[in-house]
Amino acid sequence: LAEPVYARVDSPPFDRSVVDGFAVHASDVFAADEAHPIKLKIIGRAEVGMIFPGEVPPGHCLEIATGAPVPRGCDAVVMVEYTKRVGDGVLIYRGVSPGENIAQAGSDISDGDLIFRRHRLISSRELAALAAQGVERVRVYRTPSVAVFSTGNEVMPAGQPLKPGRVYDVNGPATASLLREMGIHAQLLGILPDDEAAIRGSLEEALSRYDVVITSGSTSAGFGDVIYRVFDGLGRPGVLVHGLRLKPGKPTVIAVARGKLLIGLPGFPLSALMVFHLVARPLLLMMAGQRPSTALMSLEARVPFTPEVGRGKRELLPVQLVGGREGLIAYPLLAHSGSASALALADGFIDIPEDREFLRADERVSVTPITPHLRLSDLTIIGSHCPGIDRLVERLPGLEVKSVSVGSWAGWEAVKRGEADIAGTHLLDESTMEYNVPFLRRAGLEGRAVIVRGYSRRIGLVVARGNPKHIRSIEDLLREDIIFVNRVRGSGIRTYLDLRLKPILGGREPGRAIHGYHYEVKTHTAVAAAVEQGRADVGIAIEAVKKYYGVDFIPLGEEIYDLLISKERLSKPAVQMFLRELGSEEFQRELVEELPGYGVLPDTGKVIAG
Amino acid sequence: LAEPVYARVDSPPFDRSVVDGFAVHASDVFAADEAHPIKLKIIGRAEVGMIFPGEVPPGHCLEIATGAPVPRGCDAVVMVEYTKRVGDGVLIYRGVSPGENIAQAGSDISDGDLIFRRHRLISSRELAALAAQGVERVRVYRTPSVAVFSTGNEVMPAGQPLKPGRVYDVNGPATASLLREMGIHAQLLGILPDDEAAIRGSLEEALSRYDVVITSGSTSAGFGDVIYRVFDGLGRPGVLVHGLRLKPGKPTVIAVARGKLLIGLPGFPLSALMVFHLVARPLLLMMAGQRPSTALMSLEARVPFTPEVGRGKRELLPVQLVGGREGLIAYPLLAHSGSASALALADGFIDIPEDREFLRADERVSVTPITPHLRLSDLTIIGSHCPGIDRLVERLPGLEVKSVSVGSWAGWEAVKRGEADIAGTHLLDESTMEYNVPFLRRAGLEGRAVIVRGYSRRIGLVVARGNPKHIRSIEDLLREDIIFVNRVRGSGIRTYLDLRLKPILGGREPGRAIHGYHYEVKTHTAVAAAVEQGRADVGIAIEAVKKYYGVDFIPLGEEIYDLLISKERLSKPAVQMFLRELGSEEFQRELVEELPGYGVLPDTGKVIAG
Repeated sequence: LAEPVYARVDSPPFDRSVVDGFAVHASDVFAADEAHPIKLKIIGRAEVGMIFPGEVPPGHCLEIATGAPVPRGCDAVVMVEYTKRVGDGVLIYRGVSPGENIAQAGSDISDGDLIFRRHRLISSRELAALAAQGVERVRVYRTPSVAVFSTGNEVMPAGQPLKPGRVYDVNGPATASLLREMGIHAQLLGILPDDEAAIRGSLEEALSRYDVVITSGSTSAGFGDVIYRVFDGLGRPGVLVHGLRLKPGKPTVIAVARGKLLIGLPGFPLSALMVFHLVARPLLLMMAGQRPSTALMSLEARVPFTPEVGRGKRELLPVQLVGGREGLIAYPLLAHSGSASALALADGFIDIPEDREFLRADERVSVTPITPHLRLSDLTIIGSHCPGIDRLVERLPGLEVKSVSVGSWAGWEAVKRGEADIAGTHLLDESTMEYNVPFLRRAGLEGRAVIVRGYSRRIGLVVARGNPKHIRSIEDLLREDIIFVNRVRGSGIRTYLDLRLKPILGGREPGRAIHGYHYEVKTHTAVAAAVEQGRADVGIAIEAVKKYYGVDFIPLGEEIYDLLISKERLSKPAVQMFLRELGSEEFQRELVEELPGYGVLPDTGKVIAG
Repeated sequence: LAEPVYARVDSPPFDRSVVDGFAVHASDVFAADEAHPIKLKIIGRAEVGMIFPGEVPPGHCLEIATGAPVPRGCDAVVMVEYTKRVGDGVLIYRGVSPGENIAQAGSDISDGDLIFRRHRLISSRELAALAAQGVERVRVYRTPSVAVFSTGNEVMPAGQPLKPGRVYDVNGPATASLLREMGIHAQLLGILPDDEAAIRGSLEEALSRYDVVITSGSTSAGFGDVIYRVFDGLGRPGVLVHGLRLKPGKPTVIAVARGKLLIGLPGFPLSALMVFHLVARPLLLMMAGQRPSTALMSLEARVPFTPEVGRGKRELLPVQLVGGREGLIAYPLLAHSGSASALALADGFIDIPEDREFLRADERVSVTPITPHLRLSDLTIIGSHCPGIDRLVERLPGLEVKSVSVGSWAGWEAVKRGEADIAGTHLLDESTMEYNVPFLRRAGLEGRAVIVRGYSRRIGLVVARGNPKHIRSIEDLLREDIIFVNRVRGSGIRTYLDLRLKPILGGREPGRAIHGYHYEVKTHTAVAAAVEQGRADVGIAIEAVKKYYGVDFIPLGEEIYDLLISKERLSKPAVQMFLRELGSEEFQRELVEELPGYGVLPDTGKVIAG
């Protein structure tokens, strides 16, 4: 709104009956009750949309519909439920006081009342209030028009096969879509190469036709810094901000030239997205006449553990929200700013001041949402990620399921704190060589949680197709001509590997005995990718990676993937649906048919401990 | 999404440097530190978007930009900050471990990973994740097309002067706008009269062209019930739901005919809006392929006092949200379902089961938002409403201000509980005849809150223009030929009136001595409306109502409207801005010039107590 809106008509515009019944003189029926009904003569009917002609004398009444104007003379309405018609009269079984069941004219809104202030965003509910006033037109602020570019030699448009060393354009479509969600007209004008002249030409053209130009990428102050030079050469005053003391988001450039605003976002999508919310969004809202302070409503949440943060830099920490016992929990996504998965997972971010070194576990934080379409899940699964669970969940289309991949042990913690309904776990106990069950006591969850048997996953060595280096067993990892790719410490398979290596190494330090022992990746699939692309000769992973990578597989054994479930969540309908599906023949058939190396166990889907 | 989306490319698609610096063999620089830099020979530069041809031998390195592929042979990147160029070489001042500053190929997303499940709503953030995969097209569910009608003889379109007994159409435009906010194509097809044949004709036409028909009004089961009969006559199976055990929302009709869905919403806008969110929204989301359970994210809040609720009926209680000391506070809007002001004020509603008789003060509740554009305010003013404050706030366009009108005393309570920054108050102490100040001690707020002097408002008798009944003073209220309109108990002006009446009545019961003493309305403006429209001959109100109503005014005295402010909020920037404005000459001039009977006091804008 570019103007305040004041009421022009009363609401209600007349004394209105709020029930179906009879309009009466309250003083006539004051003493009426079940035992002593009072009879009144009906002299007509008050219809909605019409003013009853004439006045109702004492001792008389008028049939009246909800929403109809109360006729002259009457000062109350008796609900039809407390009346009984008898001939041309009606028996009133309950007294009313003056004004009862009547909405007085102007009692809700009066002519001249302030309805909305300037700068109010008109959404459906504001439109309803304006409609109630018969307002057909209001003066509003024009929203700025925005040209969006992506820049960078490495950036490719969607729909083509990805060339080596290149990435798909994320920031262009994402920024344009964000702007449209804000009600701002955005035009995606494509991808520009890292070429000063080309960028300058396109930006000059855009400046003549749009109010704002947003670019992303090519902002790094390393070698390049193309955007800074282009922005600064377009006119006075030029670059106003060159680099933010912010993590991520340092390479941000803001300029004004020819009376137009230019914003250069960082190239990494997650950085670009968060800087957009922190910097671009409030600026554009102000230009659109809205109040920047109220961009998106922040949400109160708690952090579940103690993440390290900025240390000297203000940090925007992306988080995923889940419902806990007492409100929202904000799971930090410990993803690099180049992460694409975090794009799909992040619900918002925490803005952490530069003087903080870490957040306390359970600390209360304020989360800025990055989407207006925030959803809480019906079922929250936190722990070790498994493609089998992805498949199971896909069979429950009615449920909104949130999966948070943080590794097995963090899943146990999440169940303990009441944040997860279910945790996927494949923890191997070194002393008993048993999976998961021994940890119930160790985690202090005996009697509070159960373990439901999942399934087995075959693990083994992943080698290039055709096994050109003739790898046969774990002993081969020690060969001089072999480069290994390892999994990170704490993963189930790393524990398994280190146990198997112990007798082979005979006391030698594994980092010295095995080339690449310190080359650690986070997922099974990253192991397969490293081998497929020749960065390593061998790795250890689940057999299912064969489905997606051109690699061969040498089996070593089976591991067991189980589900830890808090007892207080066992009866939850979504958990019951999950367990029914896990125990179903159809799912189990899909599991073994679709995922190589997966095996159903005799007690799959049954509570085996707790 | 009508299909699950699986990853088609790794993310990152190659081992990528996440910093500007030098790609090295980690083993070469393992021991480097500030005192013992290690020198490497630079053999070239790794650019983004290109694969470096060849391999980097030990003892050598490659200059590398953020986002560039790590060349063969290198397994870590040293940040440029820890290096110094010397000729064709570089001094490395800090060791790195293998993998440091490299995002491994596929470590974030691997080919085959599940990105999104079916039924996911694609907003900007989902679009970003799809773009990262180079996905150009996905299969989505078609959204239903919806025809929207308003019905009722009393309903008029906006833009015309309001005729007697009529109301403007709210539900039509509001429903169409709500649907568009949900991404659903809605066509507003106008207002239908309460005429069965006319409604049937229009609905038959609409059923042939749309998937869903939504009407509002004409659903009452009193006399009429037109929508039920029309819906049921359109085809099999006909009406499925006729009336909900819900308050408000009882007169809701749901039918299926000719394979299409028909929903008849109640006529009162607030009822229609809440039933839309409770019933229509989930049904339409399901038809659009979304999960109904997750319609809009509900918000945790607490209720500030003890409202009476449904008692035997499930109740949807509209609330206004404000920020309290520990999270959100949901202020029940104790408005009738015909209320238009509640439309402008309500942020959402609490869904209260039928077995509850009241909510406990401070009870934790879940609020369903009725708008995706929820905003929390910079400044919250709770208490007695005053047009002077509306004008002041209008002079602070940069602030999002929320005003909650609940009367003076409830404003004091809100300050005490930390929910209000400011409370507007005009409480008269009967023993000292002093306004507001004596209540600081009584409220237990001495030392915790201050009273800032506001301004005076002239109060007096409101009579019809030309004063046809020759009313001169309060004594005239006792005349046989005079009908009075009173204010509700607890309002400042009612207290004043009762004090003035005491000596005149001489012990008589005022309800017997004064016609209309029990005809109570809630606002100054409602008093003026009752007098202007001839429903009463006289009332008592502030003089400012003259500005909006064709009434005459007989002064009786002045009352004082002050501001109660919690000490902990005094330093808040928005409160300071408010007080600066209150003390400014420009505002004070506007106040006395624009609002009849308003007066600036010597200490206006100054702390006078606390």
